[in-house]
Amino acid sequence: MPEIHAARRAAAQQQVAAAGADAALITSRPNVRYLTGLASSNAAVLLPAAGDQVAVLATDSRYAETAAGICQDIELVTERMIEPALATLAASRGWLTLGFEPHEMTVERHDLLAGLDGGPAVLLPLGRVIEQLRMVKDETEIGLLMRACAITCEAFDSVLGQVTAGRTERELAIAIERAMTDRGADGLAFDTIVASGPNGAIPHHSPGHRAFEPGDLITIDCGARYAGYHADMTRTVALGEPAGWQREIYDLVSAAQRAGVQAATDGAEVADVDAAARDMIEEAGHGGHFGHGLGHGVGLEVHEAPAIGAGRPGRLADRVPVTVEPGVYLPGKGGVRIEDTLVVRAGSGAAEAGSTGSAQILTTVTRDLLVL
Amino acid sequence: MPEIHAARRAAAQQQVAAAGADAALITSRPNVRYLTGLASSNAAVLLPAAGDQVAVLATDSRYAETAAGICQDIELVTERMIEPALATLAASRGWLTLGFEPHEMTVERHDLLAGLDGGPAVLLPLGRVIEQLRMVKDETEIGLLMRACAITCEAFDSVLGQVTAGRTERELAIAIERAMTDRGADGLAFDTIVASGPNGAIPHHSPGHRAFEPGDLITIDCGARYAGYHADMTRTVALGEPAGWQREIYDLVSAAQRAGVQAATDGAEVADVDAAARDMIEEAGHGGHFGHGLGHGVGLEVHEAPAIGAGRPGRLADRVPVTVEPGVYLPGKGGVRIEDTLVVRAGSGAAEAGSTGSAQILTTVTRDLLVL
Repeated sequence: MPEIHAARRAAAQQQVAAAGADAALITSRPNVRYLTGLASSNAAVLLPAAGDQVAVLATDSRYAETAAGICQDIELVTERMIEPALATLAASRGWLTLGFEPHEMTVERHDLLAGLDGGPAVLLPLGRVIEQLRMVKDETEIGLLMRACAITCEAFDSVLGQVTAGRTERELAIAIERAMTDRGADGLAFDTIVASGPNGAIPHHSPGHRAFEPGDLITIDCGARYAGYHADMTRTVALGEPAGWQREIYDLVSAAQRAGVQAATDGAEVADVDAAARDMIEEAGHGGHFGHGLGHGVGLEVHEAPAIGAGRPGRLADRVPVTVEPGVYLPGKGGVRIEDTLVVRAGSGAAEAGSTGSAQILTTVTRDLLVL
Repeated sequence: MPEIHAARRAAAQQQVAAAGADAALITSRPNVRYLTGLASSNAAVLLPAAGDQVAVLATDSRYAETAAGICQDIELVTERMIEPALATLAASRGWLTLGFEPHEMTVERHDLLAGLDGGPAVLLPLGRVIEQLRMVKDETEIGLLMRACAITCEAFDSVLGQVTAGRTERELAIAIERAMTDRGADGLAFDTIVASGPNGAIPHHSPGHRAFEPGDLITIDCGARYAGYHADMTRTVALGEPAGWQREIYDLVSAAQRAGVQAATDGAEVADVDAAARDMIEEAGHGGHFGHGLGHGVGLEVHEAPAIGAGRPGRLADRVPVTVEPGVYLPGKGGVRIEDTLVVRAGSGAAEAGSTGSAQILTTVTRDLLVL
């Protein structure tokens, strides 16, 4: 897909020009992958502001041959110290004001570049320019995300028979991960969470050797990575008939999750999307048991823009994939979280209150409480 | 092991005092884990210079319950924005000169802290103080690293029967990863590399759908993660009787690797360790085919201090685990890399030239060429 990457670079170059830089040094790994297709632990892109100038990709010898194969319409530099090499190259071409990514570049690396002999005259913080471009996905990206989500859902369904008394959290996590790999995942989008019984009160519990017991709620948060794109889904299931308090918080979280999904429309303020779910949980007296944000963007990173939370700025837009994942966590007792990955679609404005929303839900496992 | 973490914090506090800071804000995840035992994607430690003051750990609600369980001898703060919370807390306690980790902190976060109302008066770059402490491992850490390496070796041996014509790189990588998990690995130390035939010329090749063919050299670079510690091992095997050029570069890399291991003694300059292997490869006319450093420290990160390479500063010391991993990569043809994880042990000085060295090799799979 070299044309796609060239088009992304052209859009990014316009942003570099608009920021007043002569060129930009892009060092965030997912941003480098977005602009070039290269997945590498040590690569950076020098992006000239002038659209008729070609970008330069620097990587070290371990990735040079792969880069040469993938990035044929870009200049390649093989260096161990990629940032100083590109900064010096920029200055040598007369690009004296060099934009950089202040949310990615460390103070140490910034000081190194600022002190370079023959380096750029000015280092200009660019902000999250590439992340903003990445927020709205093209249909190729949405296709890859759909595949990641489909793998996740199929894997989840395939292991439900293994949710039995005596099975441990760790065993179930491994089973899900293998089922995702068997269905074509490149790897995990993140470390799988399986939180059973009282561990369900810990939103990011690391699956351990606790064995499932009848009466447990079990929260499973998992996702496949496919061609760089990250799925993210959570379901909470019951082992045996749930108690009243379990059913109650499940129904509450489920209703809040539906409200969040319905609010996730083209043009909606992210703070309003959060509130749509959070208000319901607060009204039920569980506001203090839902301590995290409602969701986040997903794509080349499992957490990316936009963050959906109380007091967060910004709006959703057409083709922005996000998660909606409210939870209620009762310390010492257990918890429920329900999460989908969905894509906001144009066609239903936020103004149409009471509409069913138009988000395209990519994680399709039932949200009804599964009693196993 | 709360005493171990308390002892580490005490050693770190002395370094903070020596640097002239009133306290330090530690934000590197492995450093936070080293000092507290908490593995979290969002946690930071405020470490006072005065040894009689207790450290403060900040994390968000997702990790708060886990932190409370693990870190009982430390003050806990639950906040979403952990760095500003700790910086403000430091200032409120009169710790006005706040050390920070310039190799970890981004320019954006630094600017945020520098501009805080009621924040620290001075932000002082601390350097890699905690990384320096982490370089020399205690026996508990070495025990965990040994377990990670033992899992890796057992897993490697268990899949050798699957190296057959028609099997793909990806299939073998998955088999190794599952074998490591089955033997108790918490996860992968890094993405497994399986590079067959011409792909062997790419040091960090990502395993794909290429099927093994008779006559292939196959480079397998894999490692288990166990309790946070990372194993790292590479072997190159032959599928069918190797050609003359294959045997030649294998023998060369093998001899260079032995030379590197023997040079890895207490007190040795890392540049000399690199040279011990590199000189041999250069003399054989393959200097241009070995583009990466000889090795690196391993521990809570798969790549940590010390870096072993030409022109790198520093010396090895007792109880420093490192890798030794020379390679020869022939573009379009194939390659060989052989890598061990080993622990430098006192008792044989660098002065004893010609000694067999005293490193303790943790990855014990044979280094003889396996012809499968």
